[in-house]
Amino acid sequence: MEYTQLTAAELESIKAALDTEFENLKAKNLKLNMARGILDKDQLDLTQDMLGILVTKEDCKTEAGTDCRNYGILDGIPEAKRIFAELLDIPAENLIIGGNSSLNLMFDTFARNMIFGVEDEGSTPWAAQGKIKFLCPAPGYDRHFSICEKMGIEMITVEMKADGPDMDTVEKLVSEDASIKGIWCVPKYSNPTGVIFSDEVIARLASMKPAAKDFRIFWDDAYIIHSLYAGADMQPSIIKECAKYGNDNMAYVFTSTSKISFPGSGLAVIASSKHNIDAIKKVLTVQTIGHDKLNQMRHVKYFGNLEGILKHMEKHAAIIAPKFRMVDEVLTEQLTGLGIASWSKPEGGYFISLDVFPGTAKRVYEMMCELGVNLTPAGATFPYGKDPEDKNLRIAPTFPPLDELKTASEALALCTKRAAAERILNS
Amino acid sequence: MEYTQLTAAELESIKAALDTEFENLKAKNLKLNMARGILDKDQLDLTQDMLGILVTKEDCKTEAGTDCRNYGILDGIPEAKRIFAELLDIPAENLIIGGNSSLNLMFDTFARNMIFGVEDEGSTPWAAQGKIKFLCPAPGYDRHFSICEKMGIEMITVEMKADGPDMDTVEKLVSEDASIKGIWCVPKYSNPTGVIFSDEVIARLASMKPAAKDFRIFWDDAYIIHSLYAGADMQPSIIKECAKYGNDNMAYVFTSTSKISFPGSGLAVIASSKHNIDAIKKVLTVQTIGHDKLNQMRHVKYFGNLEGILKHMEKHAAIIAPKFRMVDEVLTEQLTGLGIASWSKPEGGYFISLDVFPGTAKRVYEMMCELGVNLTPAGATFPYGKDPEDKNLRIAPTFPPLDELKTASEALALCTKRAAAERILNS
Repeated sequence: MEYTQLTAAELESIKAALDTEFENLKAKNLKLNMARGILDKDQLDLTQDMLGILVTKEDCKTEAGTDCRNYGILDGIPEAKRIFAELLDIPAENLIIGGNSSLNLMFDTFARNMIFGVEDEGSTPWAAQGKIKFLCPAPGYDRHFSICEKMGIEMITVEMKADGPDMDTVEKLVSEDASIKGIWCVPKYSNPTGVIFSDEVIARLASMKPAAKDFRIFWDDAYIIHSLYAGADMQPSIIKECAKYGNDNMAYVFTSTSKISFPGSGLAVIASSKHNIDAIKKVLTVQTIGHDKLNQMRHVKYFGNLEGILKHMEKHAAIIAPKFRMVDEVLTEQLTGLGIASWSKPEGGYFISLDVFPGTAKRVYEMMCELGVNLTPAGATFPYGKDPEDKNLRIAPTFPPLDELKTASEALALCTKRAAAERILNS
Repeated sequence: MEYTQLTAAELESIKAALDTEFENLKAKNLKLNMARGILDKDQLDLTQDMLGILVTKEDCKTEAGTDCRNYGILDGIPEAKRIFAELLDIPAENLIIGGNSSLNLMFDTFARNMIFGVEDEGSTPWAAQGKIKFLCPAPGYDRHFSICEKMGIEMITVEMKADGPDMDTVEKLVSEDASIKGIWCVPKYSNPTGVIFSDEVIARLASMKPAAKDFRIFWDDAYIIHSLYAGADMQPSIIKECAKYGNDNMAYVFTSTSKISFPGSGLAVIASSKHNIDAIKKVLTVQTIGHDKLNQMRHVKYFGNLEGILKHMEKHAAIIAPKFRMVDEVLTEQLTGLGIASWSKPEGGYFISLDVFPGTAKRVYEMMCELGVNLTPAGATFPYGKDPEDKNLRIAPTFPPLDELKTASEALALCTKRAAAERILNS
């Protein structure tokens, strides 16, 4: 029966039982982590053999004969670029392989636009335009919001719907307000909701008519092939879609192998129109002589091609899909019918989005800390850390082993119930 | 006899012989490169075994138990930080290990200061201060100048003397002009002059009283242990020196292993006061989750400690010192007594600075191109690519094998003579 339908006495009695359960669990001094999209050590082991793959000098030569051990090559070795071109369904000249972090590429893209303006001739630096704004579909990725906040860019929250951002709102805002310079998107298995942008939403984004000539879509395709189950579709290329509508330079695409090979030792990529990439290279050539080509070669030799990567992703899925199922099973068993929570059942990505009883997300987080289970802080999925309904929590099930994850999920269900009961009784 | 002392007829005859020699050499269709500080392939081979050094999972664990394959650690693994702390003679908390490029760390430091201001509370972003300026001792490093030029920072050329920048000028300018925000320094084996800043110059730099409260010394210690011969002294730490004079936060130090392990696959470091490093981390944590820890571990396991690195540097020196001698021998043999050229005899670093007859550096470069020998373009060693006397050329002897280097040096001597004769005859 739903908590809100119960009498005070009934709920008091439930609450008392939950309190006891809570104290018992607390006594176990748990130390568990469901906070971030960290890889399970079994996932790390999948790629272990990549580390020893470069041995001889010949292993270090590109197909064009370039010695990867030496200086040179700003945008990536040709054989590595080819793999990402296939992955992103764009020509290799439309992308640059960066260092180990797509987040870093995003930050640098903001920094470039702040200092130099976007890639179009005569563009005014964002930093010289006074107050500028960004659209932030939420729940979203806290590190995206941190970049905006650090840069002093005002964030406007847009509702994330089941098929992507609320496009009526996005179109209206973008077409009316020239101080809005961009929008954050995680188009596939969105962080944390798992939402897959529909083709219609993608077309509407690509065909926008922004008031700002220097408007940009930041398309964080972090989970582009990170499906939990077989048969996932690929989305249309946002770069090609934008070009269809005459918005050739409107989108930057970011991706990485952080959750394919190694977090921190993978390859990150930025892709865009040829025009943008050429302009970015003019700054990049002042910033660096080139990124780590040996690591690029390591990836090429280990994976061979996109097919090799896709096969590798099946192994990742085999490890983490059971974890997503475990969380879902525990939450289903513990919370169904109580009217106090709902959660996503993602087909990929690294997160489950849990909506608890409104006004209790912070309290649930607090209780989880008390139990020794590390969660992403409540509010983190919204701009400025402010969840207007105080209800969303991001669950990251990949890191803990299954048995620990079960305990953590049970703790989560317990705290969700206890906080809801407390809230309803006190209202 | 000096060219300027010869009669026109004598010089005409010399010129005719040089022309013939030039045409003969041109017919050989050389394809040689003395343009940049690229490593010889024998130098690259020195570190080949580093590539296979990480094998087991245990190899990937830090001394604190952190798995380098996963996310985490913003500023570098402890054992790698310790080595750089010893190298730079500062506490480990005063440094951050970045990606593969110290140039990138320098660019990012400019970008941070442009967008956010320097690390002091309430500092105004450089980009919001109108016209700002930088002191550029010259001849200097073209990539430093490119960063200033790209950022729209006005460069003021300061004379590079035998013991460092002309400090009378530097002190005067810095103390009088609050729009001067910094100075570029390559304190040891300066690029391209090979100048080693004296202790006195270092103390004078550290004790400056800049008019700008947000003045910074960019201390590019690229060649800190890159001596050609045994027995080189270490310089005092600029960070400690600055602190002595109450300028605690005035210096950033940059170094890398690009010319120790692999260019493009080495480790880069930024060091500064604890205050500055803490403030930099607050931005860095928005920019990235962390740099490539596996590559850090590779370096730690391969070199062990600073002593291991120093021994490795002897092997580099054994390969490249004969190349520096070769260039010097050829130039000495070909140019001594002609009164048309002088050049540095560096004790370390990657360059020889050649001053040809005033007004002929561009012409010598042109002739070298015609012969098929790639040189750093004339002018590159000065801000905006403008050498006021058109006389300086940067010679990079490390890349070509000895026999090719001999040919290239002979070509250089020939072009130096031919351009001088041409110039004197036409004046």
